[in-house]
Amino acid sequence: MQREIVVLRYGHRHVRDYRVTSHCCLVARAFGANRIEVIGEEDREIAKTVQEMNERWGKGAEVEFFDDWKKRLSFYKQKGFAPVHLTMYGLPVQNVEAELAKIDKLLVIIGSQKVEREVYEKADYNVSITLQPHSEIAALAVFLDRLQKGAELGKKFGGAKIEIEPVSKGKKVRPIGQE
Amino acid sequence: MQREIVVLRYGHRHVRDYRVTSHCCLVARAFGANRIEVIGEEDREIAKTVQEMNERWGKGAEVEFFDDWKKRLSFYKQKGFAPVHLTMYGLPVQNVEAELAKIDKLLVIIGSQKVEREVYEKADYNVSITLQPHSEIAALAVFLDRLQKGAELGKKFGGAKIEIEPVSKGKKVRPIGQE
Repeated sequence: MQREIVVLRYGHRHVRDYRVTSHCCLVARAFGANRIEVIGEEDREIAKTVQEMNERWGKGAEVEFFDDWKKRLSFYKQKGFAPVHLTMYGLPVQNVEAELAKIDKLLVIIGSQKVEREVYEKADYNVSITLQPHSEIAALAVFLDRLQKGAELGKKFGGAKIEIEPVSKGKKVRPIGQE
Repeated sequence: MQREIVVLRYGHRHVRDYRVTSHCCLVARAFGANRIEVIGEEDREIAKTVQEMNERWGKGAEVEFFDDWKKRLSFYKQKGFAPVHLTMYGLPVQNVEAELAKIDKLLVIIGSQKVEREVYEKADYNVSITLQPHSEIAALAVFLDRLQKGAELGKKFGGAKIEIEPVSKGKKVRPIGQE
């Protein structure tokens, strides 16, 4: 199955959320999402950071900003995506991950501090990663790791200029396509 | 095996890193770490946030600030802890997690933007979560989830005043000890 994953980051506030939204986007890209949409105040720096990473470290998801989450949700529902909202109030991931892994198109919604009640209602699944408050960045990473059963951990990104050679100490980065 | 996990957040800068370090601490707590140490400029707000969470949601790890990571590393090494540094340049988690799961005392080090070379050298293990740049918050969460094989996901925290009742839609929180 060729799974398609779109990550929707709900509720970005300019400046204030810069670093947290950046982390969300970088995690979505690194863990193999196909696309990232951010709902909120546009921040070109974030889109640019991810774009530069795609140029250097290989082609992954790109980021685009939108105003209206309901329109994006409708758009993806019409395309056959199942909206999965990550929230501490939802059903434990370990109970639903096998079912979710069978779905080939997922819209993974991650919120910021305040999420409208309608998001819970319009999502096909509300899923929790632990039953404690923590971080949408962490929730996204653990969810994508469990959904893909770790297949994303060794993912190669096409068109990379450099790649890491894992080492037990220090750092090793090698250029690609230049012997 | 009663595993002991201490999370060491290396390099906190006051104000600038507030939210990211907060996320790190909340993740460490929610994913069952026993203790959190932050190296850098003291921020009482962060310690207080985690303390309040422990009072409300149940007793988990507490946060303390220190100046000198080398002293803390020595302290934990003497106590028999194995330092594990999470870094994109390290050995893939999927290759080392079985070995690491056998260790009963782990000092999990997560960095911020710049980490001194000595951290890589003094760590017993340098471990990567994907070979792409992303987030120390995500790396910590995925590492703790894999290390504990998901046992942390259903963890109950003692002395909680409230707890979540997982539901497929909406939010449900119940007080504890008041029938």
